[in-house]
Amino acid sequence: MKSGNKRIIFLRSPRGLPVPEDFGIDETAIPQPNAGQFLSRTVYLSLDPYYRNVMKNSQIYADRLSPGDAMVGETVAEIVSSKHLDFKAGDVVAVRNGWQQYGLSDGQGVRKIDPSVAPIATALGVLGMPGLTGYTGTVHLAQPLPGQTFVVSACTGPVGSTAGQVARHMGARVVGIAGSKEKCTFAVSELGFDACVDYRAGDLRGALKAACPNGIDAYFDNVGGSTLEAVTLNLAMGARIVLCGMIEAYSMDAPPPGPWLGPIVGARATMKGLVVYDHMNRMQEMTRVIGQWIKEDRFRWREDVTDGLEHAPEAFCRLMQGQNFGKALVKVGLAPSH
Amino acid sequence: MKSGNKRIIFLRSPRGLPVPEDFGIDETAIPQPNAGQFLSRTVYLSLDPYYRNVMKNSQIYADRLSPGDAMVGETVAEIVSSKHLDFKAGDVVAVRNGWQQYGLSDGQGVRKIDPSVAPIATALGVLGMPGLTGYTGTVHLAQPLPGQTFVVSACTGPVGSTAGQVARHMGARVVGIAGSKEKCTFAVSELGFDACVDYRAGDLRGALKAACPNGIDAYFDNVGGSTLEAVTLNLAMGARIVLCGMIEAYSMDAPPPGPWLGPIVGARATMKGLVVYDHMNRMQEMTRVIGQWIKEDRFRWREDVTDGLEHAPEAFCRLMQGQNFGKALVKVGLAPSH
Repeated sequence: MKSGNKRIIFLRSPRGLPVPEDFGIDETAIPQPNAGQFLSRTVYLSLDPYYRNVMKNSQIYADRLSPGDAMVGETVAEIVSSKHLDFKAGDVVAVRNGWQQYGLSDGQGVRKIDPSVAPIATALGVLGMPGLTGYTGTVHLAQPLPGQTFVVSACTGPVGSTAGQVARHMGARVVGIAGSKEKCTFAVSELGFDACVDYRAGDLRGALKAACPNGIDAYFDNVGGSTLEAVTLNLAMGARIVLCGMIEAYSMDAPPPGPWLGPIVGARATMKGLVVYDHMNRMQEMTRVIGQWIKEDRFRWREDVTDGLEHAPEAFCRLMQGQNFGKALVKVGLAPSH
Repeated sequence: MKSGNKRIIFLRSPRGLPVPEDFGIDETAIPQPNAGQFLSRTVYLSLDPYYRNVMKNSQIYADRLSPGDAMVGETVAEIVSSKHLDFKAGDVVAVRNGWQQYGLSDGQGVRKIDPSVAPIATALGVLGMPGLTGYTGTVHLAQPLPGQTFVVSACTGPVGSTAGQVARHMGARVVGIAGSKEKCTFAVSELGFDACVDYRAGDLRGALKAACPNGIDAYFDNVGGSTLEAVTLNLAMGARIVLCGMIEAYSMDAPPPGPWLGPIVGARATMKGLVVYDHMNRMQEMTRVIGQWIKEDRFRWREDVTDGLEHAPEAFCRLMQGQNFGKALVKVGLAPSH
């Protein structure tokens, strides 16, 4: 066993897009659990765009970082030793260890993972918070009907690929938006989308019009900005827009304006804000439904795994530039030998 | 009886705010009804902000104007002669005669008015399309609950005063937004609102925060722009925003951007576009409910009446500058002697 606990620490708030120099690395002693706690070693670290907001010291998240603090974040980990009645050594859990090799937990908000359902890394992706986001936003907010046109941006990421596949299983026609030809090919051939538009190819408004000749009935928005605007100019009557992420804005100092809202009125459309923490009560429902589709090989996902905690900062910077392809993960330690 | 039919005609699309020179005046022969038609003489002409959009030759309205056409618009009129089985001379109707003294109709979309329920001009205001807009947008879209805070802009106009009073009768705490101290006093003392904020006094965001200490649960938006933005910065969790009018934008050539949508996500808010024509099936319901409140003296309104068709252009220009106080009407002819 290692003698130390390597950690990636927060050094400073990024200016614009984050750079690796915004982070540092150190090593501390491995902590030991007190009564009611357990110690776990991190196997996978999840990289998520919202960390950029946490680094901004925005008030919208509970986490607050001071320079020198370990970066916060979701992980999959194996319990090493436990003084908690509900957890034992060898259990695999989804726990917020942050960007470090070891973490203590009192069990609050921790989910046990059943490695027989799917690879354990999915607990950070399609069977975790991103999956829950895509699932509840589609089933309970966007509510696409059979034959309707459902559009989703960042469509090869864990939220977008879940939303799109859920909509497909609800009978909708699914059109993805992604940032490369390669991602679009994946969306159609692997995720089963009906079409996919590359927003970097220019004229997104026109491309969406061609791909959605009857207009867009439901849109799952993971990016905001000009992509959202292009969608509003192609709405069908009664359209629903789920506002979920605004990745462009996370790296800005001042919030940008939104789209002109006239088309929302014209289309009698509805926009709804989605924050996944409101839907934690549906985690079991989501795991059951998507777990079944996974078993039947009717649900796919893609991971973008970086090896080694020390490379987490670069991997996160790539994510914020849209350079990742699939759920961004860092492999921090060996997988448990189940 | 007069020998001619005076008309206000459309001359040109305004640049920015409309000016009286955008209109002309002429006189034609009084038309005569063919079989299936009736002729009516206009008593009241309704002035509504959406005319500004019609003058833009926007594609969102069915009406299209060419220079020299009579301005379109809703009127209350008395039938002079009829070759239509369902209408007879002396009937008072809400009909789209436009900005002229006489008009022909085939009866389509015409409502008969019962002068015993309320003064006939209300058929263009609180018991007409504006009332239906305020009623359905509040009851069926904004859905304020008892004790919740309901905010409405342009709150002394026919849409806003209806929305606010309906919300009050639903048990909500109602806060108006208007453009003068005089209007705010009217909203509180006559319409029974709990508070009213003068947006011309500056720092609307702060004033709303003071007037709505628990946040805004529902907002009926008649203006868009900076007012809408100030509201988004004061939302309560789960807030509903009904987008109904964007008067600021009607006089612009290019649509302005909307507010930053981050607060919509943070508040898990919903924005819904309202177009009153979708809710025509509720006209009877609205007339019954509000008519009863009027009978019981639990529902008020205010009119801003300009005398004489020839003054309609100036009155419309005043409306577009927010200089009116109450439902803007032009008295075109004598009231029927019922």
